Amino acid sequence: MGTDIHHLDTVTFDDELDRIEIIDQTLLPGIVKTIYLQTAEEIYEAIARLQVRGAPAIGVTAGFALYLLMKKCGASDRNAFEKEMTKTADYLNSSRPTAVNLSWALNRMKKCADRTLNSSVTEWQSLREQVLDAMRRECFAIRDEDIDACRRMGEYGLSLISDGSGILTHCNAGRLATVRYGTATAPIYLAHEKGMHLHVYCDETRPLLQGARLTAFELSSAGIETTLACDNMASSLMKAGKIQAVFVGCDRVAANGDAANKIGTSGVAILARHYGIPFYVCAPLTTIDPATPTGADIVIEERDPSEVTELWYRERMAPDNTCFSVYNPAFDVTDHDLITAIVTPKGILRAPYTDSIADVMS
Amino acid sequence: MGTDIHHLDTVTFDDELDRIEIIDQTLLPGIVKTIYLQTAEEIYEAIARLQVRGAPAIGVTAGFALYLLMKKCGASDRNAFEKEMTKTADYLNSSRPTAVNLSWALNRMKKCADRTLNSSVTEWQSLREQVLDAMRRECFAIRDEDIDACRRMGEYGLSLISDGSGILTHCNAGRLATVRYGTATAPIYLAHEKGMHLHVYCDETRPLLQGARLTAFELSSAGIETTLACDNMASSLMKAGKIQAVFVGCDRVAANGDAANKIGTSGVAILARHYGIPFYVCAPLTTIDPATPTGADIVIEERDPSEVTELWYRERMAPDNTCFSVYNPAFDVTDHDLITAIVTPKGILRAPYTDSIADVMS
Repeated sequence: MGTDIHHLDTVTFDDELDRIEIIDQTLLPGIVKTIYLQTAEEIYEAIARLQVRGAPAIGVTAGFALYLLMKKCGASDRNAFEKEMTKTADYLNSSRPTAVNLSWALNRMKKCADRTLNSSVTEWQSLREQVLDAMRRECFAIRDEDIDACRRMGEYGLSLISDGSGILTHCNAGRLATVRYGTATAPIYLAHEKGMHLHVYCDETRPLLQGARLTAFELSSAGIETTLACDNMASSLMKAGKIQAVFVGCDRVAANGDAANKIGTSGVAILARHYGIPFYVCAPLTTIDPATPTGADIVIEERDPSEVTELWYRERMAPDNTCFSVYNPAFDVTDHDLITAIVTPKGILRAPYTDSIADVMS
Repeated sequence: MGTDIHHLDTVTFDDELDRIEIIDQTLLPGIVKTIYLQTAEEIYEAIARLQVRGAPAIGVTAGFALYLLMKKCGASDRNAFEKEMTKTADYLNSSRPTAVNLSWALNRMKKCADRTLNSSVTEWQSLREQVLDAMRRECFAIRDEDIDACRRMGEYGLSLISDGSGILTHCNAGRLATVRYGTATAPIYLAHEKGMHLHVYCDETRPLLQGARLTAFELSSAGIETTLACDNMASSLMKAGKIQAVFVGCDRVAANGDAANKIGTSGVAILARHYGIPFYVCAPLTTIDPATPTGADIVIEERDPSEVTELWYRERMAPDNTCFSVYNPAFDVTDHDLITAIVTPKGILRAPYTDSIADVMS
């Protein structure tokens, strides 16, 4: 059976109680607990501490947050409101500076507010209501668009899967990274809804184990047959004929189709090519960046060595001397020629990607 | 500086004190402690608990053990000695039933003893001394042959490396798995002795982290520049141009050159092929098995799921429900056509391996 998280959205907003509700992802997979965010500090901490994570889910949280905090602020005129909004958005934005969807959602909310603030209405209480009403519609629109984009990717992706298939995925591009469905997992959830039988293999995804802790958890909790494997077991699974397709998410897609995603993704793509297995990248349009010509132009964040060295039963599990160092990049880039197709909410893109990406983004 | 284990053999025998001395590998990398084995129970536990591990090191330990225990036994005649020897060997052999080198070394010691026991000498004390003397020479010969085989593989392997190279290795085929030098690490240690500058990248090797805990430890302790990376980072390292050659050990080589080794090895071989990097397997002759036609004939041990699921800060780090399972094979098979060369103590084998293996084994 499993813990039922299948009916819960990762991020919701309660209009009656004026609070954001999220599943605390730092407690997964052991404990499924919904926590309630009402103050700027609570929201900041939730994002900074990764209680909510995944680009789309962070964007939706930020949208709800700016609406909630402006609704609660006591600004007595237009200028005070604008000043408070800028201050609040800057504060929230500093919770995870590198998360593009965070600043994207906050900017979209501010622009929406500004459009109404710049209207001809002069009576403040009336204007305030109009601004908050617009912001409310905008943050729910961000939420709805996320659900819709994931569902569309799911439908397109589903056309690439046949009943009885084994699917390999890497890291967590699942519902826990979005509001519902996920990106790479969307075709899997839709297949499950339609009664198809898939078996999903999750790379555990070292060093932070998102595949083990999150993807394997959410899929098996939804009643989907799920097998966890260490990252280095993918070749063995493919050779054994257990994998018919690979679906992964992405952090950024360049204009030529090169895709940056969690470290290890490019290796999975090379293995898939070797074994003749299709490799699909699921990409919301917000992750496609025509301004980045190729993967070589994407700067890869290198993370703290302790993520790799300190997990072994609370004791350091690697040496500690002057000849020793750690390599710990967060992402890698998968060359476009290893990608069978890019699944977007607007359809399935095929090579040459420079053309198909330009088309879908125009 | 690092902890100096570089002058210690992994397994030694002290003739004065009648004891086997090993580095307790369950305490590495945090603590370097030599422990002393004198009784059958102590030796059994040391092998069973992996305080000594690695096929060659286990074989050498078993050789010393049978000599030591027979020297200490009070058998009063030929028959009692033979009976005690069989009993002791059976007991030791049961400490790790699947370790081929364990039974191989015990059988070799028994055969050596039997040759002398079957001589025409009739006075028991005199015969006993002759048998023990032969057994002593045999166990030291097993030790010396291991050191010699590793050194020879090192010399052949060294001819494949140029100064300044980056070398990737997987799991621990290091000195800690043998008496000295290791198999895959032998060319690296010899290069270091000659003053060459190599940079070694160690896959951490999930689930049991032998790369992090053992290989990265022994190499960096010896003063060799060593970088630890998660298994899924190998593609990123190769793409960045940091790897000029891959050296791995092996558990068994089939007649056609297919090589079984720690899970993940075949994936590294596919990545190396993709990036045009040579992939070398180091194989003592005892690991080459002409009776196994291909890799498909090698049975792969599947290990306990808890190795994968239970490491995350002492708490289970994966879900636990009926839709969830774990894939945890101990080894995989690397197809011979992905192997650039097989380095043996008798020279470097190239494709077609069916011919070169038949030649070297004849």
